[in-house]
Amino acid sequence: MQHCDTLIAPRWCIPVEPSGVVLTGHAVIVTDGKITDLLPIEKARQVYQPSVHIERPQHALIPGFVNSHTHAAMTLLRGLAEDLPLQGWLRDGIWPAEKRWVSAEMVRDGTELAIAEMLTAGITCFSDQYFFPEIVAETAVDLGMRAMVGTPVVEFPTSWAGSAGEYLSKGADLVHDPFAEHPLVSTCFAPHSISALSDESFTELRVMADQLDVPVQMHLHETTAEIAASVKQSGQRPCERLDALGLVNAALLAVHAVHMTDAEVARFAEAGVNIAHCPRSNLKLASGIAPVGRYRAAGVNVAIGTDGAASNNVLDVLAEIRLAALLAKVTENDAAAISAAEALHMGTLGGAAALGLAQTTGSITTGKYADLACVDLGSLNSQPIYDVVSQLVYTANASQVSDVWVAGKHQLDNGQLAHINTDELLERSNEWRDRMAGSSDDQAR
Amino acid sequence: MQHCDTLIAPRWCIPVEPSGVVLTGHAVIVTDGKITDLLPIEKARQVYQPSVHIERPQHALIPGFVNSHTHAAMTLLRGLAEDLPLQGWLRDGIWPAEKRWVSAEMVRDGTELAIAEMLTAGITCFSDQYFFPEIVAETAVDLGMRAMVGTPVVEFPTSWAGSAGEYLSKGADLVHDPFAEHPLVSTCFAPHSISALSDESFTELRVMADQLDVPVQMHLHETTAEIAASVKQSGQRPCERLDALGLVNAALLAVHAVHMTDAEVARFAEAGVNIAHCPRSNLKLASGIAPVGRYRAAGVNVAIGTDGAASNNVLDVLAEIRLAALLAKVTENDAAAISAAEALHMGTLGGAAALGLAQTTGSITTGKYADLACVDLGSLNSQPIYDVVSQLVYTANASQVSDVWVAGKHQLDNGQLAHINTDELLERSNEWRDRMAGSSDDQAR
Repeated sequence: MQHCDTLIAPRWCIPVEPSGVVLTGHAVIVTDGKITDLLPIEKARQVYQPSVHIERPQHALIPGFVNSHTHAAMTLLRGLAEDLPLQGWLRDGIWPAEKRWVSAEMVRDGTELAIAEMLTAGITCFSDQYFFPEIVAETAVDLGMRAMVGTPVVEFPTSWAGSAGEYLSKGADLVHDPFAEHPLVSTCFAPHSISALSDESFTELRVMADQLDVPVQMHLHETTAEIAASVKQSGQRPCERLDALGLVNAALLAVHAVHMTDAEVARFAEAGVNIAHCPRSNLKLASGIAPVGRYRAAGVNVAIGTDGAASNNVLDVLAEIRLAALLAKVTENDAAAISAAEALHMGTLGGAAALGLAQTTGSITTGKYADLACVDLGSLNSQPIYDVVSQLVYTANASQVSDVWVAGKHQLDNGQLAHINTDELLERSNEWRDRMAGSSDDQAR
Repeated sequence: MQHCDTLIAPRWCIPVEPSGVVLTGHAVIVTDGKITDLLPIEKARQVYQPSVHIERPQHALIPGFVNSHTHAAMTLLRGLAEDLPLQGWLRDGIWPAEKRWVSAEMVRDGTELAIAEMLTAGITCFSDQYFFPEIVAETAVDLGMRAMVGTPVVEFPTSWAGSAGEYLSKGADLVHDPFAEHPLVSTCFAPHSISALSDESFTELRVMADQLDVPVQMHLHETTAEIAASVKQSGQRPCERLDALGLVNAALLAVHAVHMTDAEVARFAEAGVNIAHCPRSNLKLASGIAPVGRYRAAGVNVAIGTDGAASNNVLDVLAEIRLAALLAKVTENDAAAISAAEALHMGTLGGAAALGLAQTTGSITTGKYADLACVDLGSLNSQPIYDVVSQLVYTANASQVSDVWVAGKHQLDNGQLAHINTDELLERSNEWRDRMAGSSDDQAR
């Protein structure tokens, strides 16, 4: 008999790669944080002596979801400014609150709440774009979550940095930060959007990103207003200006990409640009519906992001892939535009690929990290089951996620967070709310 | 002290009517199935001696959701035919399965599964359109669920009836059925769609509906194909033909109404027609997005329906109101198009009004039935809370529904169905699946 750390025996195993495969009667073997085998359960019982044996008789085991774009700490602003379009939401709701309240302490507490929420929703990796990224990295490591941590870059001063140059140099430091060298953490540059930086700063950013070999993620073509402003200011659409600056390449993660011409999509496909599709945020801020069926048909990899909790209002990739599949059917006028299996791919391996992590996570593949989620399909709303992938995507709620492992560590065990004190976390969240809203409990509505 | 059956003390009480009100520190008093008082908790404790005292310290108490359009028994077909447009989905997936399998027994088992699922999702009333409506009525009464039971009317024979005339006469019988005289049940006529009946049958239906004073619900303007076929066949758009037949009036519940001209919307407003908006089904079958912001602005009452589980795939009004609010923001190009409070209204009182039940259910109002749902907002994804209605609509999952009362009967108690044996129910569902799919458990995927 061979020793292994964990043997997981679900009813169904959906590895995502190869595509379309659903295994029954199979076990996943985890050793030293990695997936080391995937084999029929009878054989697994003959071969392996696990320290921990997990039986999940009415569950589907899938790769953990990848949240390819969020602003984790904004969980503390969840619901603060509602039913407003992007510009008003930022100008009147979010920016004033951020200016007053963003600090290392706020980012730590907000990121902890976000990570706890994401783990309960089956997310094992998130790509973040917010101030104090070194705190985001530290928090991810402390809580055992996989993260791609983006250094924010803007021209204006904030509590974290004073100028584009300082944002960039702090971003470069982050690449060599002790937390960023942790196996759970990688880093990228995250300029806010096309209007946030001068040509000089974008050029400097490109040189640094190339030298340090890190990706660049930014909000791009999120609204028609953004595009119009860019044309007015520079005579170029955002994609066009970015291309002229040498930033349209395989290291770019274009967040949102709601409004794109066919030529721009073709250029993205040619350059290997990845798109982070955030369908719920795009609806909530009335930005539009990204035609991701068209993007995928053109050969562009599409990942799924929740965006921040202040514009969503939850960090739930399972809900986003369902919405992405449903919306694509209407935008393409084709009920088969994006199937359940394709939606699942966007929320897992598509996300990992967009973050440059496809070699290490995003599918149940021997040699990858054991970043896994188990979803209970035994509840009334998911029964009966004709097609397990379809029921997973079109019926399951985040609350049906029973178990999560990140790099083999059992983070969610039968619906309970194993290593996070949620009572204490919620207490801190409520203290922040009281401070920010300037209100007592009873006035909260 | 005054006796009452139940005193419910939630953290927040959202009565829906009056609109925009959120009460804290209030109790709802239930006696003989009705809401008999709504008052500050301190006063309630002085005045009432309840048989049952319910404390829900992190919960919002709301009117139970009204599912204004479903085909309950189709839960047994959930996921049977996926990622197909309406016509192909009906012709190749659903109709053959229905032809072979629909029976009184199937309708009972499927409706039980649907009612159990709806109760767990906070739904206290559903409007149904399916074969064997007398079985639907009987099942609703047996399980203690409120239902508007629609008699299907088509020209072709099924296992339930042989001709339009027989459907209609069976529908008339249903009005006087012992189950249909139960306080939980009301009835209506439910012609399938504009192409399903001849002018003669529609005329006969109108006369009977008028005489019996019952509403008419039908799929209407669901797809552009339906409209084109109608124009080709009769030279009239479906609304136009229906209007000529005298059926466009306040008793009509137009289901879907995805594609409407401004003139048609104005006509609906003038006639007092209600619309059952089923956003997720409309996306899944690639039918389109109903511009409900425009309908509401024109003064048309909009209710929310899940449609059947085979095209959704869940019976979850909370998810539908969120989707309705999000979609309206994009179709209206206005992030304020439908607020969280307006979405909640559509899923509760708007639904009750559409079914002609606004005097008896749909809001937390003294004198109405105690049809109530309690939602736990203490979970990570709903915290912190700045605006409780916003967090309810934009963050909560059906799984956060903790308690449901229908006519004062505690149907869901702290997340557990109090009067339904779910294990036995799921066993029967799986037997149906095995029969219909002709497959064993292990082949199910």
